Amino acid sequence: MQRHFEEELEKLKEKLVLMGELVEGMIAKATLAVNQQDPSTKESLYQQEERVNLIQIEIDELGISLIALQQPAATDLRFITSAMKINNDLERMADQAVNISQHIVQATEIFPQEIFNMLDMISQKAQAMVKDSLKAFLKKDLALAQTVLKRDDEVDDLKDNICLWLISYMKENPEKIAGSIDLLIVSRNLERIADHATNIAEDVIYMVAGKDIRHHILEKQ
Amino acid sequence: MQRHFEEELEKLKEKLVLMGELVEGMIAKATLAVNQQDPSTKESLYQQEERVNLIQIEIDELGISLIALQQPAATDLRFITSAMKINNDLERMADQAVNISQHIVQATEIFPQEIFNMLDMISQKAQAMVKDSLKAFLKKDLALAQTVLKRDDEVDDLKDNICLWLISYMKENPEKIAGSIDLLIVSRNLERIADHATNIAEDVIYMVAGKDIRHHILEKQ
Repeated sequence: MQRHFEEELEKLKEKLVLMGELVEGMIAKATLAVNQQDPSTKESLYQQEERVNLIQIEIDELGISLIALQQPAATDLRFITSAMKINNDLERMADQAVNISQHIVQATEIFPQEIFNMLDMISQKAQAMVKDSLKAFLKKDLALAQTVLKRDDEVDDLKDNICLWLISYMKENPEKIAGSIDLLIVSRNLERIADHATNIAEDVIYMVAGKDIRHHILEKQ
Repeated sequence: MQRHFEEELEKLKEKLVLMGELVEGMIAKATLAVNQQDPSTKESLYQQEERVNLIQIEIDELGISLIALQQPAATDLRFITSAMKINNDLERMADQAVNISQHIVQATEIFPQEIFNMLDMISQKAQAMVKDSLKAFLKKDLALAQTVLKRDDEVDDLKDNICLWLISYMKENPEKIAGSIDLLIVSRNLERIADHATNIAEDVIYMVAGKDIRHHILEKQ
């Protein structure tokens, strides 16, 4: 029974890792498509999202059956219910990646490279936060989870800078307002992905350190 | 044991209802503040968000202890794990309401009433979706959950109309670009609240009808 439980728990972790890798890949692909102003990747992102949706259901089912059949001890129970929440966050990141691909500016519209570089920077940070929040969960690494929370502030600053940059660009280039709005939406989708990673990190802190410390950390932000 | 379980389950439901009411109130308050261009409500929204955060932790704790101590049957187990997911969605709606209050346009900037009316309409629809998705969950009402999914399309259309309206307004009034971006962000926060309600409705469908039907419905969208 115990050995079977460990095996099933291992399967749950592997599925989460797979889902995390898929989602990271989707964010990278969507960002590249924005930078290269290439709308052709939209279709493959839809297909990957379908795959993520299927894995989400598998993880939920595995979590439920682990709890129902194995009646895990309190620590394992918290791990499994956290995994099911994290599962949700990862699936919503995949949604955001698809949403990004719906706001690719047409190749005929020329924008300064600077804005694409800023978007790339926020995307890189978000991807690293996804990777590290998941790693913190699997290794129950409180310190790593806390670095994710800190990095969310950097992402927020970047998002604000992009917004200010775009506002001033739109004022000078009113014919580029529609394209600028697309890029603004992309930046907010990326920031939202970082938010989901932050939610995962908060779940880790809650799981490892208990509610009081979690609340303390949240208040300090 | 059974009676105690029913009582605790009732407590869980009551806390979710309370949280739903608080969140609905926060959305209404934030929207009113946007319409009246009144930044003074920001503080009270922060306080309500703190309260929502505390209830979120209480619901999570109650869910975990119900599962750990009472070892519920499969149906109850699915209900409790769904409640814990819905709990997350409600808390993030509260975040969105706070975010809305950070994008209130200064009272000195005059915008046509039309845009505020559109924002109010999207807000009303989102609030009704929150109420109905939660009701569908508590009553395990599949039909009601499905109406929430349908209404999400209406909200998306409204959001797109607001975006188009604002783009054309900005082109004609470049001095209003910064304020217009704030209103755009508000509309997207409201749309995101509706998305969370849709996620709750999807959880209900998943819980009541099982994974195959849920997937079928999702694919049809």
